[in-house]
Amino acid sequence: MDILDIIDKKEKGEKLTKEELQYTIDNYLNGTIKDYQMSAFLTEIDLLGLSDEETINLTDIMLKSGETLDLGFDNIVDKHSTGGVGDKTTIVLAPLVASLGVKVAKMSGRGLGHTGGTIDKLESIEGFKTSMTLEKFKKQVSDINIALVGQMGNLVPADKKTYALRDVTGTVDSIPLIASSIMSKKLASGASSIVIDLKVGSGALVSSLDEAKELASIMVKIGKCYNKKIACVLTNMDEPLGYAVGNSLEVIEAINTLKGKGPKDLTNLVINLGTQMVSMGLNISEKEAEEKVKENLYNGKGYEKMLEWTIAQGGNINSIPVSKNTKIIKAPKDGYISSINALEIGKLSRKLGAGRLTKDDEIDLTVGIVLNHKVGDYVKKGETLLTVFYNEKEITDEEILSSFKFNDSVIEKPKLIIDIIK
Amino acid sequence: MDILDIIDKKEKGEKLTKEELQYTIDNYLNGTIKDYQMSAFLTEIDLLGLSDEETINLTDIMLKSGETLDLGFDNIVDKHSTGGVGDKTTIVLAPLVASLGVKVAKMSGRGLGHTGGTIDKLESIEGFKTSMTLEKFKKQVSDINIALVGQMGNLVPADKKTYALRDVTGTVDSIPLIASSIMSKKLASGASSIVIDLKVGSGALVSSLDEAKELASIMVKIGKCYNKKIACVLTNMDEPLGYAVGNSLEVIEAINTLKGKGPKDLTNLVINLGTQMVSMGLNISEKEAEEKVKENLYNGKGYEKMLEWTIAQGGNINSIPVSKNTKIIKAPKDGYISSINALEIGKLSRKLGAGRLTKDDEIDLTVGIVLNHKVGDYVKKGETLLTVFYNEKEITDEEILSSFKFNDSVIEKPKLIIDIIK
Repeated sequence: MDILDIIDKKEKGEKLTKEELQYTIDNYLNGTIKDYQMSAFLTEIDLLGLSDEETINLTDIMLKSGETLDLGFDNIVDKHSTGGVGDKTTIVLAPLVASLGVKVAKMSGRGLGHTGGTIDKLESIEGFKTSMTLEKFKKQVSDINIALVGQMGNLVPADKKTYALRDVTGTVDSIPLIASSIMSKKLASGASSIVIDLKVGSGALVSSLDEAKELASIMVKIGKCYNKKIACVLTNMDEPLGYAVGNSLEVIEAINTLKGKGPKDLTNLVINLGTQMVSMGLNISEKEAEEKVKENLYNGKGYEKMLEWTIAQGGNINSIPVSKNTKIIKAPKDGYISSINALEIGKLSRKLGAGRLTKDDEIDLTVGIVLNHKVGDYVKKGETLLTVFYNEKEITDEEILSSFKFNDSVIEKPKLIIDIIK
Repeated sequence: MDILDIIDKKEKGEKLTKEELQYTIDNYLNGTIKDYQMSAFLTEIDLLGLSDEETINLTDIMLKSGETLDLGFDNIVDKHSTGGVGDKTTIVLAPLVASLGVKVAKMSGRGLGHTGGTIDKLESIEGFKTSMTLEKFKKQVSDINIALVGQMGNLVPADKKTYALRDVTGTVDSIPLIASSIMSKKLASGASSIVIDLKVGSGALVSSLDEAKELASIMVKIGKCYNKKIACVLTNMDEPLGYAVGNSLEVIEAINTLKGKGPKDLTNLVINLGTQMVSMGLNISEKEAEEKVKENLYNGKGYEKMLEWTIAQGGNINSIPVSKNTKIIKAPKDGYISSINALEIGKLSRKLGAGRLTKDDEIDLTVGIVLNHKVGDYVKKGETLLTVFYNEKEITDEEILSSFKFNDSVIEKPKLIIDIIK
């Protein structure tokens, strides 16, 4: 077997055997296959696709390329988001479902993005520690149902190496590569139920609904191969989620949401994803699960769990710093907001220092943007449209305003939950 | 501009501008664009193609990436072969057309292949030197109309770097990449007329006739953009050309052909390509050119030019060594030969030591295979089918015989000249 034969076979449109995929991953990891050869192979997959069988085999090979965690609990529920602007959902969901008895033992990333990952966001709470020993991690899950850390163990090294290459060769947006990357990591981390928040829209990895449905159905298929309960919730990511974009600003919004005072769209999403997680985790009907989720969102139990969790990981919830300076941007005219470009708002937040362009960039946890309005709202000229929280790095009014579109007649609020595939 | 944007644009099926192609080549040469990124880009071209305009622009950029030669002669005719098994045509053609007054100032490669390149083959003539100063090169062309050397000057560095990458990433067989590679080199070496022998078949770079026609027509189009006279002759490469495969064995066959005693197919090809070259080089009709070519092939003038040329480059035509050992392979049964697999015969010759797998391999100039029969011939069981010339490395009778197929009823001789595109 030879990587050139495999590249040639793929070019001809023939299906690759599991042995051929195994050979490719093994020899890429040991350095026999070079980056430039793997990049040719990944570009072929990006342009020609993979069959479901090939994607399932690739996932299995990646999953087994490193350690897999067994935490010793029967029914851990994991939640994954494909990433969007203003996405602080995990910080609300994790304590909320834990307060209902669901075990949340979660690893999150820092990630390259417009703002930091969940780990960065949580670190904006003074003292919050995002690393601990496996033993302490297990004990915390056993004691209070919830623990959340950064990377632990050498899980899925094949994905780490491949993802770094995809990031610099234009092969990030391939359905089978996204599916095998997400699912190999979820399967390696030992959850028995998986809920995926698959964002669709201009601010997301996947912008078309057809592609999102294709991605969801192959991920569900993979999950079922391993006897996992799995649901993919397709959600809109054309405008930012909630009002806040930026690390500490998002944590503050998450806490408010746990107090029952969150933005409508975020609250709605939390109830929806929470229902799936609780139904799977407690093995009850969705109707019953939804009632429980709503109950603990409004009776303060979710927020209490947040406090307990924060203390367990060393954080002080009363100390979440925000930037020194703020600037108010006003509506330039009367009208209905017809669009808030999530991608542009994300890029502007990164420009303020909220996100990284490369792994080594430092981020400013205190800066970002807080919207006062969302798509469909009517605004009057001169009314506050949003507040920019900034320190050294600034952005202009024009840059911000070019992310907005206005309309004279009524605009319907976009539908947040597009579909659930399971 | 950014290579990821360019890769993304190509993936979407949009046409690339000349500025984008220029950016890509420039930054690949200076190391800003990495091998793994270029490999993704080349794989896209391999799978999605390029428009004629993109291919013409790419060729121009490659051509201008290094030096170009101006030898100071008005009408140099160059000939290029896309490479086949037993292809010693240049060694016959170059002195033959030079004997008619056509200027042949040619650079040839060593190449990776089943046997060496033209340069290797000529070096099997004792003392034959294949490098000289530009000054001596020009003087020799002026004095005797012919000089042939290896690489001279820093021509088309973009092709050198790209070709090395294509060779290890499965992107050799892309029509626009082949066209821009061949044409940038031909245009940089200063010929005003170009004849291309485009081999089609199992032993060639291009195996399908449709692809060969596509390649020929884009190469002709590129040539015309630079006001060059150009012709592409499509020739069959399913069975080896002539009888001899192996460096010194091929030179001996070439000399016999110049004495008018060559194999029918090789002689036919030489007359055909020679007609094109002489017609272009002397600016006369093809009919007149063909008469002249035939005349000097049979009156000894072509052979005299070969002698003159060999002496000018320091060679002794009476000393062309062949291997110590020979082995005769006999026909296993009565019948018509229906197929001799050129690719397999090529691989076996390389196994004997006649060709290189990597640039650093040494080759044995004296080994190879000499056929006694070609496709369409009738053989009787026990009759000599071919002779293996070998030293240390051997091949089995079974390996050789598996390259042959036999038939009970008459087989038509394959047509050598398939088409001429100009």
